[in-house]
Amino acid sequence: MNRVLASTAIGVLTYMLVTPAFADLKPEDQIEFRQAGYSFMAWNMIKIKGNLQGEFNQDQVANAANVIAAIANSGMSALFGPGTDQAVGGHKTLAKPELFKPENGEEVVRLAREFVDAAENLAEVAAEGDKDAVQTAFGDLGKTCKNCHEKFRANDDD
Amino acid sequence: MNRVLASTAIGVLTYMLVTPAFADLKPEDQIEFRQAGYSFMAWNMIKIKGNLQGEFNQDQVANAANVIAAIANSGMSALFGPGTDQAVGGHKTLAKPELFKPENGEEVVRLAREFVDAAENLAEVAAEGDKDAVQTAFGDLGKTCKNCHEKFRANDDD
Repeated sequence: MNRVLASTAIGVLTYMLVTPAFADLKPEDQIEFRQAGYSFMAWNMIKIKGNLQGEFNQDQVANAANVIAAIANSGMSALFGPGTDQAVGGHKTLAKPELFKPENGEEVVRLAREFVDAAENLAEVAAEGDKDAVQTAFGDLGKTCKNCHEKFRANDDD
Repeated sequence: MNRVLASTAIGVLTYMLVTPAFADLKPEDQIEFRQAGYSFMAWNMIKIKGNLQGEFNQDQVANAANVIAAIANSGMSALFGPGTDQAVGGHKTLAKPELFKPENGEEVVRLAREFVDAAENLAEVAAEGDKDAVQTAFGDLGKTCKNCHEKFRANDDD
């Protein structure tokens, strides 16, 4: 990503973080909502995986991919505001402190962008209904999840 | 809802419950995923409410309405399977036992259908960008949430 693009992306993130509709959320609510988003995407990933391993129902796959793309595109970066880098109000987080460090901002934005792009691509491919193409797009999306988790998410059992 | 429509809707529910991609989920996972869906919709309701009470950003409202419609349309009835009518595996539920009684099936399907229709309507209206129309559609959606909660969801502090 070149510097202009990175600056634009960070500008978008900053804008979203200061938009009133987002800014009023308590840190614990931000953690709850972001975990809800990831959890609901996980269910839809499970659905698609089930279709790839068994009988392929295009409508179900396209529906699930659409849900993932909608959530991925919903501005979840606004749910990583100040005070959400550690457990708060009874809500734990697996996000590592590194995720919130300004020096990692460009990388975080890049990984987030790759994730959103892959989710959008899966939704487009799933609408076409070719199982092999869905398999590839699904794998690509999984890689973008893994890329971010490896660097910025603690293991469940840490 | 006439009997044919009700039977069809129940047929759809039954089909979804027995589809392999759904059927493998443990009850506690079904509870987690359905709560995640409602929670993430709540965040997007909060965003829309914030836009209606403050500066109206059409893109943000349309985006949030699209997320709600996608989740509402994702077949969440599959997450109310056997064994999910009470706390299981550390996952509590606010769903009342009445929600799972066969004699309430037609009413549950009707309420769910009204909710999905209202969510789809909000997404369509939000895409047009008229604030007053969004206010009305948003209120209509809220009523469908309330109609189901009043009958089939316990209060948080029960």
